[in-house]
Order: sequence, then structure tokens, then C-alpha cells
Amino acid sequence: MAGGDDLKLLGAWASPFVTRVKLALNFKGLSFEDVEEDLSNKSELLLSSNPVHKKVPVLVHNGKPICESVIIVQYIDEAFAGIGPALLPSDPYERAIARFWAAYVDDKVLVAPWVQSLRAKTEEEKSEGLKQTFAAVETLEGALRECSKGEGYFGGETVGLVDISLGSLLSWLNATEVISGTKIFDPVKTPLLAAWMERFSKLDAAKAALPEVDRVVEFAKKRQAQAAAAAAASETK
Amino acid sequence: MAGGDDLKLLGAWASPFVTRVKLALNFKGLSFEDVEEDLSNKSELLLSSNPVHKKVPVLVHNGKPICESVIIVQYIDEAFAGIGPALLPSDPYERAIARFWAAYVDDKVLVAPWVQSLRAKTEEEKSEGLKQTFAAVETLEGALRECSKGEGYFGGETVGLVDISLGSLLSWLNATEVISGTKIFDPVKTPLLAAWMERFSKLDAAKAALPEVDRVVEFAKKRQAQAAAAAAASETK
Repeated sequence: MAGGDDLKLLGAWASPFVTRVKLALNFKGLSFEDVEEDLSNKSELLLSSNPVHKKVPVLVHNGKPICESVIIVQYIDEAFAGIGPALLPSDPYERAIARFWAAYVDDKVLVAPWVQSLRAKTEEEKSEGLKQTFAAVETLEGALRECSKGEGYFGGETVGLVDISLGSLLSWLNATEVISGTKIFDPVKTPLLAAWMERFSKLDAAKAALPEVDRVVEFAKKRQAQAAAAAAASETK
Repeated sequence: MAGGDDLKLLGAWASPFVTRVKLALNFKGLSFEDVEEDLSNKSELLLSSNPVHKKVPVLVHNGKPICESVIIVQYIDEAFAGIGPALLPSDPYERAIARFWAAYVDDKVLVAPWVQSLRAKTEEEKSEGLKQTFAAVETLEGALRECSKGEGYFGGETVGLVDISLGSLLSWLNATEVISGTKIFDPVKTPLLAAWMERFSKLDAAKAALPEVDRVVEFAKKRQAQAAAAAAASETK
């Protein structure tokens, strides 16, 4: 890490967006202060660092705040360009492709499974959510085949922006598998992704950043119960 | 333009996302072939260039397709780094700030006014949509004050990513003003934005890219009528 650099991450352990920033910092080999925010009572530092959205994650670098997870990952790559592996390719076309798949992960994978399962009112809505997730996962299998030539990562031989974007969801995807009893990265239907997940999960940088699956399961079940209680309350109003 | 570069833009005149790419190409001084797609009967080139989303805009550069408007703008800036003005700052922190506000424009300004007015079923929903837009516009006024020091552009002295992101919406914002009878960039409440809009609209690159407001008004009214007819049909089913 560059001498005198001060990195503070304002986060919350369960947030995949926060995990994303932790992964980027870990893969670059940058040490940082991990500040756990109480989201029901946000700190002055969080509120003043992200006055527009008031959300985690915020990375504070030498006193200057950067917000929004994918923007932070790109910032880390650019501000620490000489340190550790590059997270984005140097070729403009390949960078555009990486940004495309990172946006795809956010649009199609991030939101679908667990938000649907938390918000879905009917079994039909739940299964529609899972169906969309599976379609997205198959598309990603194709992307991984092209990007990695079947081995390694979306970033090629090393981990990059797309690996970090998708990897940040692994604990949540695994928790969804536990709760729903359905494999999302099926070794038969999507063998490359299943192997990618195995490989990614074993990396030290990933192990240090990803929350424990059991803890996420417990957190998700609590959220589901709260959502159900709120729905019941609003129906009896 | 670099010798031998072939740039083809697959677009549709009314799309602000397509306008965004035209703005970036114009500001960089790059000539391109403007291919108008029939969105009800998409070309083979569009379907094969963007098989995932099947949407415009797609920029085809020497036969290689790039999708998603903000990704395309960054690609243009990086692939033609030596040509015309830079669209993103060179400093990593300032780049992150530009990306933040570009994302803000997409989240808060792009969708709110006209989608709400097209989809809103009640007057309350319509006015809620406008209220959110005004709140976002006031936040942008503050951002413009900081970025431009009160003069010039979000990009400082020259036009950059945020100017292009917001500028691509101008014809639609003006059309919404005409239809709703409400000023969105009010010269009293948001004087900097109102002056920015004047300045931006007069640039040759903007005049060449922005669709005519009257044509957008007509298009939007047709869409509103179609949406109303569809809603009426679904209620009588």
C-alpha cells in the first residue's frame, strides 16, 4: 500500500455491495479500517460522506469519500494502479465488455432471487423470480466461457471487475440455495460457473471478505419474517 | 478521427440513450454512420450485436459492438483518448465523482418525469413523480455549483460525462415541460441549471444530436394515448 494512504470502509457486514469493496481491496492487497455501521442509527461520518444517498458502502480515502460499489471498485483500480493486480483490462474494448457484464450482474442476478423471494406474495411470483435468475445464470455461463476460455476467471487468468461483482453475491446466493433448496449454480447445467464458484470461494481474499453463509441465512430468515409481519399488518389495517 | 476507423451507431431517434452516444461522438469530433433501427422489426445486425439485451444504442467500432450508453461514452473516451477533448477527468477521484453524478442522473432524473407521467394512474402518482424530479434537480443544482464553480459545465470548463448524461435528456425534459406546463429547470429555483441548459443547447455538437422538442412532444403524446388505451383494454378484460 502506498505510504501514508488512509483507507476507511463504512459498511455493514450483510451487504453484498460492501462485500464487493472488501473484495477489491483484498485482491489489491490494500489494508483498510473496516467500520461497521448501524444502519438504524447511521454515523455522522456516513451521513456527511454520502449526503445524497446516505448508504453504505462508502470508501474514505485520505479523508475523501467515494460512493457506489462499482464506482468504488473502479476507483480502487485507478487510484492504486501500480499496486497489486489490475482489476480492469487495459484495452478499452475489453474494459467495455467487463463493465457490460458487471452491469448485467447488478441488473439480472443481484436483485432477482432474494428480493423476489422476500417480496413475492405468491408461489407463482417466487418461481418467476427463480426462473429469471436461472436464465441470467445461463447467460453468464456463456459469458464466462468466452471471457475465461473455460478456465480461470471472468477477468481471464486473474480476478477482475466481473468476478468481484458476481463474487460479492456468493454468500447470498448460497443462502438462497439453502433456504429454497434449489441449486443456483448447478454443476450439470452451468458447469463452468459451478467450478468458478469453487475456485473463487477458496481464494484468501474472498474468504476474508465474504460473510458466513449460516449468518446470512439467519439474517435473510429474519428479514422474511419481518416482511411477512409487515404485509400482514398492512392487510389488517 | 483515426485513419481507417469505422463507427456505426445503431439507434432510434427518440431514445435519450442513443442521443447520449451521438453527443459523445459529436463532442469528440468523430464522424459516424447513423443507422436508424425500426424497433418493431429489429435488424439482424442489432440482434447479433446485442444478443443479451437486443436494445439500442449499439456502437459498432471496426466491426466490434459496444452496448449500454454510459459504457459506450466511456469507451469512446478511452478508445479515442488522443482525439478531441477528454470526456472524463484524468484524476481518479474526479472520475469517480463524474461517474457518481452520471449514475444519479440515470437513477433520479431519467426515469422519474416521463415514465411516471406515462404510467401514473392517478393525479397523486403524477405529482409524486414530479416532486421526486424536482428534488433530484435541486440536488443536481448543488452538484453543478461544486463541479463547475458556478460557470461552465459539470465537466468544468468543457463538457464531460455528466453533461452528456443529463444533456441527452434535454429534449425529453423540454417536451415534459410543454406537456405538463411546468418548468423543470426553473430559472429562479435552479438558476445554474437553467443557465447550463441554455449554454449546452447552443453548442453545435448538442444541436446536431438532440431531437426536436416538437417531434418528441408528438411522440410522447402518442405513447401516452397508447398506454391509456392499453390500460383501458386490460380493465375491460
